[in-house]
Amino acid sequence: MPTRNQLQSLFETERDRYLREWQEFLSFPSISTAPEHAPDCRRCAEWLREHLARMGFSARLESTASHPVVLAERKADPGAPVILFYGHYDVQPVDPIELWDTPPFTPSLRRGRMYARGAQDNKGQCFAALKAIEALIHSGDLNCTIKLVLEGDEEAGHMPILELLEREKANLKADLVMAADTGTVASGAPTITMGLRGIIHITAVLTGPDHDLHSGVHGGRAPNPAAGMAQLVSSLHDDSGRVAVAGFYDGVEAPTPMERSLANSTPLDPGWYKAATGVEPIAGEPEYTPIERTGFRPTVEVNGIHSGYGGPGSKTIIPSQAVVKLSARLVPGQTPEDILQKTIRHLETHTPPGMHLSITEKGIGGPAVRISLDSPAVKQARIALDSLSDTPTAFLWEGASVPILSHLPVIAGAPVLLVGFGSESDNIHAPNESYSIEQFKAGFLFTGLFLSQMKHRP
Amino acid sequence: MPTRNQLQSLFETERDRYLREWQEFLSFPSISTAPEHAPDCRRCAEWLREHLARMGFSARLESTASHPVVLAERKADPGAPVILFYGHYDVQPVDPIELWDTPPFTPSLRRGRMYARGAQDNKGQCFAALKAIEALIHSGDLNCTIKLVLEGDEEAGHMPILELLEREKANLKADLVMAADTGTVASGAPTITMGLRGIIHITAVLTGPDHDLHSGVHGGRAPNPAAGMAQLVSSLHDDSGRVAVAGFYDGVEAPTPMERSLANSTPLDPGWYKAATGVEPIAGEPEYTPIERTGFRPTVEVNGIHSGYGGPGSKTIIPSQAVVKLSARLVPGQTPEDILQKTIRHLETHTPPGMHLSITEKGIGGPAVRISLDSPAVKQARIALDSLSDTPTAFLWEGASVPILSHLPVIAGAPVLLVGFGSESDNIHAPNESYSIEQFKAGFLFTGLFLSQMKHRP
Repeated sequence: MPTRNQLQSLFETERDRYLREWQEFLSFPSISTAPEHAPDCRRCAEWLREHLARMGFSARLESTASHPVVLAERKADPGAPVILFYGHYDVQPVDPIELWDTPPFTPSLRRGRMYARGAQDNKGQCFAALKAIEALIHSGDLNCTIKLVLEGDEEAGHMPILELLEREKANLKADLVMAADTGTVASGAPTITMGLRGIIHITAVLTGPDHDLHSGVHGGRAPNPAAGMAQLVSSLHDDSGRVAVAGFYDGVEAPTPMERSLANSTPLDPGWYKAATGVEPIAGEPEYTPIERTGFRPTVEVNGIHSGYGGPGSKTIIPSQAVVKLSARLVPGQTPEDILQKTIRHLETHTPPGMHLSITEKGIGGPAVRISLDSPAVKQARIALDSLSDTPTAFLWEGASVPILSHLPVIAGAPVLLVGFGSESDNIHAPNESYSIEQFKAGFLFTGLFLSQMKHRP
Repeated sequence: MPTRNQLQSLFETERDRYLREWQEFLSFPSISTAPEHAPDCRRCAEWLREHLARMGFSARLESTASHPVVLAERKADPGAPVILFYGHYDVQPVDPIELWDTPPFTPSLRRGRMYARGAQDNKGQCFAALKAIEALIHSGDLNCTIKLVLEGDEEAGHMPILELLEREKANLKADLVMAADTGTVASGAPTITMGLRGIIHITAVLTGPDHDLHSGVHGGRAPNPAAGMAQLVSSLHDDSGRVAVAGFYDGVEAPTPMERSLANSTPLDPGWYKAATGVEPIAGEPEYTPIERTGFRPTVEVNGIHSGYGGPGSKTIIPSQAVVKLSARLVPGQTPEDILQKTIRHLETHTPPGMHLSITEKGIGGPAVRISLDSPAVKQARIALDSLSDTPTAFLWEGASVPILSHLPVIAGAPVLLVGFGSESDNIHAPNESYSIEQFKAGFLFTGLFLSQMKHRP
């Protein structure tokens, strides 16, 4: 079993190769929501399959209704613990592209950070874990069976992978599900993520006139969908910031006093938040702390609104249509189907007079995940993290969603462990996404240490 | 002095040439708001100048801070009446381009209608009048001095022409200002436009986070500018459709009982309106008829809202910014400066917490125009129109704005006459703009008849 120091020197020896391979992985524009990038997603998956085969895995591509999934396995002795590791090779879109300092798919290493779309989310975090597994294979310290599920639709808001997982269910049984797609608390302390929010999304189009109208001739006559959409969207929240969709909070499970106390033990520093984002953390329900609002409370967010003219100067029209893209983050006690239905009903009942609403897209990610503080894997991960850092391990109830992680534990019949090293300054889902070599190395060391200690079924 | 029949046979004789020249005029993509089309605006102005010179005008291009203005003059005997005719050769942008059946700058004649951007507004209406003047020159029936002001910034929401008009003021004195940039009432009856609304416009940007944020990590913390813009925009109107900007209606002049009665004598048929636009005419203040709302009441209209993601699928962000493009239509008693200031103050005082508002563009078109029912030119135009049609002439208080027409009468020291033949089905400012040969011919006949009767100073 390698020590922390042995793993560190292993990392330093191979560091240049790791970075080179990581850059190769990042250079595929595997944007899952953009149909024109489907061939890039496939090329990226093929690259991964070959890479894993060279690492000693039995690896294959499996088709889905969308992008292929990489399934891989490396067997240890029968009776050895089985770890199912999940990651995704697809990335977010890159717009607004003009705000990137270097092209998003030409990875650029500057001042110890790798800049590229996917540098962290999830190619960077996932690849650090894969390299740790490779290092343990080389040093002979890997004593568990590793199963890998690396998919290409995590960022697309739908899950064609589910049908595949059902089909492959017998091959995916495990003792523990792991993923490295989470972050650390604001202080940077090593962090175990104890919860994720669920997610649904909706695209709604409001139609008024059947073509753009002259705003002089028709202003004061024709219903204006841009103004109507503003009304409709503003009806989603009340003046206090609470979601105004009827029944939205029905059944929401409150955290235990211990969960609440642990979450608030790493409070959000408003000054740090302002420096990192440009805003004060003042949105949402004022009766909860910012930590509680993202960890334990659901939200409805407006991801985009588009209607009419947006160019220079003025174009005096009443637009024919307005589109809104919404998502809701869910917590335990809410079911995605129910919230989707309630939100659509709200949009329908609040549609302004004279206009027509249509729901052009809708999707369910999955329900929320909340992990027990009593999980043996959580306790073991805490020991590994404590040995890697002088800072005590923090527990985080995360606001983000990794929908597949509410499904995979059911498929694998195993609990889930979420340890990741992302940070706010990584700018995931935004221009100039990056991930530092230090973070990459932390992911490598944790995975190496945790897996090398995993000799017996938990 | 030619009769209606003589003018009609003149038109039929030259019809093919008129259409050919009109198509040539329409083929310039003279979009004034788009900087990349500045050379096209200049080429269009040069084409006009040469065309007018061939018609017998002394014509020149005058530079402005934006696109050039064509100034032209054809002198009659000293003492003859002087008519200042105004038109514009610039056109609206063409987006959404994908909704055009034929390219906007490849004029296409189908079923008696010319399809092109500018087919009506204003190239078509203006060119019909120019051809009438040409016909009177050829037949020796033009007994007045004609001055032409044809500009290239009418659709751009600013008026670089004003500085030029001040400079050329001595050359622009006239007995009557005319323009053909208006339409007929819904029934299609020949129409004299008695009023135009004024206009201001504003572009406002609401900024929250300094980059797009992950809506999971930050939903419930970071103020969302897309949601904030929806709130801000919906605050501009109250639930009844009335503008909620403080002091917006201060000083608004009511129509005289005669004006109100004449306006309502051609009521808006809701069935016709629904067929023409796809909506019921239900926007605005319910205590006024639709005719009164556009003729005598001011509005604030949302011309566009843009924030965040708008592509396929979902992108789970809290956008960094949201932009809104607003315009207000003004009536007599409101001053543009005052309404601009009040609207900006409203936006500032209603900016949601945690976000920053900036006004990135603002502009004043001009105040409203209202023409007296006692004007001699109005009476004479009514006689000409009545002789051209079996339908009695209608009087229209128009909702649209031609800002220059509130300035030109002051410069020329003369009243204004507004007769035009536009119709709702022309789709001006929208995809598939068109103008029928019948409408073009009506403009030709009216201008010919009206001007040929103009022998003495009014």
